Amino acid sequence: MFDFQIAATSGAARTGTLTLPHGPVETPVFMPVGTQGTVRALSPADLKAVGASMVLANTYHLHVRPGEEVVAQLGGLHQFMAWDRPLLTDSGGFQVFSLAGFRRVNDDGVEFQSHVDGGRRTLTPERATEIQWTLGADIAMAFDHVAPGAADEATSRDALERTLRWLERCARRHRDLADRPPGRPSVQTLWPILQGGTHPNLRTEGLRRILDMGSWTGLAVGGLSVGEPKAKMYEVLELLEPRLPRPLPRYLMGVGFPEDLVAAVQRGVDLFDCVAPTRNGRNGSAFTPEGPLNIRNAAFRTDKGPVDPTCDCETCTTYSRGYLRHLFVAEELLGLRLLSLHNVRYLIRLAEQMRAAIRKGEGALAAWADDWRRRYTQPGIA
Amino acid sequence: MFDFQIAATSGAARTGTLTLPHGPVETPVFMPVGTQGTVRALSPADLKAVGASMVLANTYHLHVRPGEEVVAQLGGLHQFMAWDRPLLTDSGGFQVFSLAGFRRVNDDGVEFQSHVDGGRRTLTPERATEIQWTLGADIAMAFDHVAPGAADEATSRDALERTLRWLERCARRHRDLADRPPGRPSVQTLWPILQGGTHPNLRTEGLRRILDMGSWTGLAVGGLSVGEPKAKMYEVLELLEPRLPRPLPRYLMGVGFPEDLVAAVQRGVDLFDCVAPTRNGRNGSAFTPEGPLNIRNAAFRTDKGPVDPTCDCETCTTYSRGYLRHLFVAEELLGLRLLSLHNVRYLIRLAEQMRAAIRKGEGALAAWADDWRRRYTQPGIA
Repeated sequence: MFDFQIAATSGAARTGTLTLPHGPVETPVFMPVGTQGTVRALSPADLKAVGASMVLANTYHLHVRPGEEVVAQLGGLHQFMAWDRPLLTDSGGFQVFSLAGFRRVNDDGVEFQSHVDGGRRTLTPERATEIQWTLGADIAMAFDHVAPGAADEATSRDALERTLRWLERCARRHRDLADRPPGRPSVQTLWPILQGGTHPNLRTEGLRRILDMGSWTGLAVGGLSVGEPKAKMYEVLELLEPRLPRPLPRYLMGVGFPEDLVAAVQRGVDLFDCVAPTRNGRNGSAFTPEGPLNIRNAAFRTDKGPVDPTCDCETCTTYSRGYLRHLFVAEELLGLRLLSLHNVRYLIRLAEQMRAAIRKGEGALAAWADDWRRRYTQPGIA
Repeated sequence: MFDFQIAATSGAARTGTLTLPHGPVETPVFMPVGTQGTVRALSPADLKAVGASMVLANTYHLHVRPGEEVVAQLGGLHQFMAWDRPLLTDSGGFQVFSLAGFRRVNDDGVEFQSHVDGGRRTLTPERATEIQWTLGADIAMAFDHVAPGAADEATSRDALERTLRWLERCARRHRDLADRPPGRPSVQTLWPILQGGTHPNLRTEGLRRILDMGSWTGLAVGGLSVGEPKAKMYEVLELLEPRLPRPLPRYLMGVGFPEDLVAAVQRGVDLFDCVAPTRNGRNGSAFTPEGPLNIRNAAFRTDKGPVDPTCDCETCTTYSRGYLRHLFVAEELLGLRLLSLHNVRYLIRLAEQMRAAIRKGEGALAAWADDWRRRYTQPGIA
């Protein structure tokens, strides 16, 4: 369990299989985000139809509403949301630092104000670990302190040090939970999150100290795609890649947009999550091989063609751009769902295409990615 | 084409097959309403999964947005909304009299203000017929003047007379369109709408004059379920039943709620449409054999059971009440879809159950309906 086998590489990129209690996951993989225990506008059947193998849910959101005990009484997160494939929960760290109206951080944990009912709550490394254990995802994340993308070194150092201290407490609590009763095969693993902002020395030091702390089944890079320039994100990934243990799956949190997925896979990343495909879909923006397209554009009024002629999703094989435009202009719910479905399929296909290119061996992914970028960076059709 | 074969009767109730250009429809049948060319929150695949055989769309809405010419350029209404089974369009009469902020009625037609852009538009019997021909549904409805449910006899008489004059013009225009080019098999039929409010003499006179006007392939009863007491609606249906030609399919417009469907089938009605299942579903109200249930009820917080244990829909076979409650409390889009799906399935199953009871012969439907009402009128479980 929690095994990761690399099948092929191409440059720094890898393709392989991550084995989890709820099934295997082929990597590189894009995980759709089910913030509140549902990927917005999509059903589990939709997600399977577009090839999703793993979904992320948010500990902060599920803790605040309906509460992890309710989820547990309804059979745990898998049964609650009727998703029988692998699940990952983030720790709540990111939400506490980005969503909550009020927060007070000290070494024990974070006191914050719920964005739902305004009530004061506290998350500590131990609580975040217990909540995730109660939810029951295949992968739990350590509770981290996320600094803004433009944070100076002192601020980033402070967040990194706290995150490392919290990681020890998360790991200890998770070990206690997972060993009870002793001898039972573990149903959940815990992954550490590397912080350190855009500061190379903090990133390399943080990574070394995480790896010294124990043997992990995977490792996440956090604190990127939080406002820093894209070039900075790529630099951090390039810095880390040769230092990351090759056998460990690498998860780049909160990424991404198509161009980020391609760039990060080329820099050795295996797992991704992002709300972009569903959020953009609900806003009428569709990914296509030529770039994003705004379906509300008047040019699509009588366009009989599909959103993306190369796509095999239900939206693209069934509906015209003209009809989808009508759904958005008329504010019909079906439109939100159909573009979300297409965008999720787009990113999952992108990962599939990269897996195929990596399997072709040295140089193949780079050639594929150059072609892809040439087409994608052309002026969008909308 | 446009053939109706009655297979069995039980009292005044009938079950049979209506054959239309896009396929057969077993009656009694409930038609989900696709107001703007989409059944709100549901896809054509969802509708097929719950057994929908025929869908209604609104001429007024599609004329105002995106316009019938856009629909025609996108392949006609069936291709536009990706629904390859039978479609019926209402004439716009009901919407002009219920939705438009401003209207001026004269014998030529109705001038009204679009609820979308405020622009002045005019619908005449000829225009309503042409628009429906352009949309291309299997069944078009005659343009009618709908009076409120509590209208006095003079008002109802005025609306009835105008509707009858307009019917002649609709029928003439439809004949011209359907005969061009001559000899081509007709792809659309036109059904008249009987008005007359709750006034027995107007209803019987109106019916006689419609039947004298020509030979129809079906007939709609309009102007019911528009604010009059339910008992009045049932009285009108009982008055009309023995006077309606038995071989003609009978369509009760805008009905209904489960109890109305059962009562009207017992009074000889074959076709129904109503926004209740989708509108109520979006409001968190689910039909069950015991009566409607409000999914937001706190009692369902940790309820592992399905919305309706007797139901075979995706919602009831996949999700707990507790999860559905969470989706509504958290304002997640999936909740709107899942309860809409269940409610549509509920009414389609209700029609299926009545078809089965009718096939059992004399007395069987009455016995089934008594049982059904005993259970349904019990205090709801919510």
